[in-house]
Amino acid sequence: MLKERYPSKLLEDAVEAISSLPGVGKRSALRLALHFMRQPQENVHRFAEAILHLRDDVRYCSTCMMISDGEKCSICSDSSRDTRTICVVSDVRDVMSIENTGQFHGLYHVLGGIISPIAGIGPSDLTIGELVQRVAALRSESDAPVEIILALSGDVEGETTAFYIYRQIEKFGIKVSTLARGLGFGDDLEYADQLTLGRSIVNRQEFRP
Amino acid sequence: MLKERYPSKLLEDAVEAISSLPGVGKRSALRLALHFMRQPQENVHRFAEAILHLRDDVRYCSTCMMISDGEKCSICSDSSRDTRTICVVSDVRDVMSIENTGQFHGLYHVLGGIISPIAGIGPSDLTIGELVQRVAALRSESDAPVEIILALSGDVEGETTAFYIYRQIEKFGIKVSTLARGLGFGDDLEYADQLTLGRSIVNRQEFRP
Repeated sequence: MLKERYPSKLLEDAVEAISSLPGVGKRSALRLALHFMRQPQENVHRFAEAILHLRDDVRYCSTCMMISDGEKCSICSDSSRDTRTICVVSDVRDVMSIENTGQFHGLYHVLGGIISPIAGIGPSDLTIGELVQRVAALRSESDAPVEIILALSGDVEGETTAFYIYRQIEKFGIKVSTLARGLGFGDDLEYADQLTLGRSIVNRQEFRP
Repeated sequence: MLKERYPSKLLEDAVEAISSLPGVGKRSALRLALHFMRQPQENVHRFAEAILHLRDDVRYCSTCMMISDGEKCSICSDSSRDTRTICVVSDVRDVMSIENTGQFHGLYHVLGGIISPIAGIGPSDLTIGELVQRVAALRSESDAPVEIILALSGDVEGETTAFYIYRQIEKFGIKVSTLARGLGFGDDLEYADQLTLGRSIVNRQEFRP
């Protein structure tokens, strides 16, 4: 394809910047740049400021590494939550997804990624050390039970990460659990993948009508 | 769907701003917001500045209404171009597409849209008045021929706009043309839509081997 020629350096710079976003190609970037040009000036300024504020002022909770507006996030600050059950997730979005279910009342620990030799992400790039410290602190604090839920993806990287974490925390003699896997509610058997259906049968649960 | 709860007001504001872009939903907006958080601060500032500069400093060519960094765009300023052939397009992107072909050496006129009663866009919202003035000026300047190419879309709105413009400029007695329509180069007959194939046969051209 021929190199695109732009009628304006300003437009070219904006398209360049927008197309650096993940999943945005040159064509969509041009469409978005022209969209910005048509918007009222104050809207575009509000847009830019929202992104700058996010980048410059947002913080991570010192306990669970979740995005936070302050030193401690709203979940860790909530005294009604069970501080001895920690759900370990790879990403901020996972916390939001689980929170939206309204079914979990413990705290979280955001790893900031997943062990992936291909992507060059090793255990030291994640907040696993901080997690081990949290568990150690909980154990020394009281004898009440502690549970770590490894809520990671079911692929090789997720399982590798879960296993690595398990090896780091097993010495504390605490309960370590993982998410239930099986058919989704409402899933049809005939459309389920073999692995999921197979595991659903092996890990079948007592029927409680 | 439940209303998403955000762990941070700053994140929520950024997601709100990003999801106001056309074609970007809440989920993609969250993904992009988290992307900005992971980028080096200077990259995010460069991004915001590129968009603010575009919105605040970009101009439109006083002649053809094309995006321009100055009073006159690079096409209108190019003395090698044929100033008496004007290609009328609805959008800045159309100019870029035609320029990329390298096949047109006249000037442009950007309407800034297309007549669309449904979208509430009438002739006075477009730069049709300016086009009529340009044609009038060319006619009074010299007796050399003038050609207006109506390079608008082939749908009802495009044809309505083309017809409206034609009625406004026919009094000048100039040549008015439109884009050739037919099968694309490399198109298979069996996959062509009926309308296109039908018109291709009716408007068949002399074979020049």
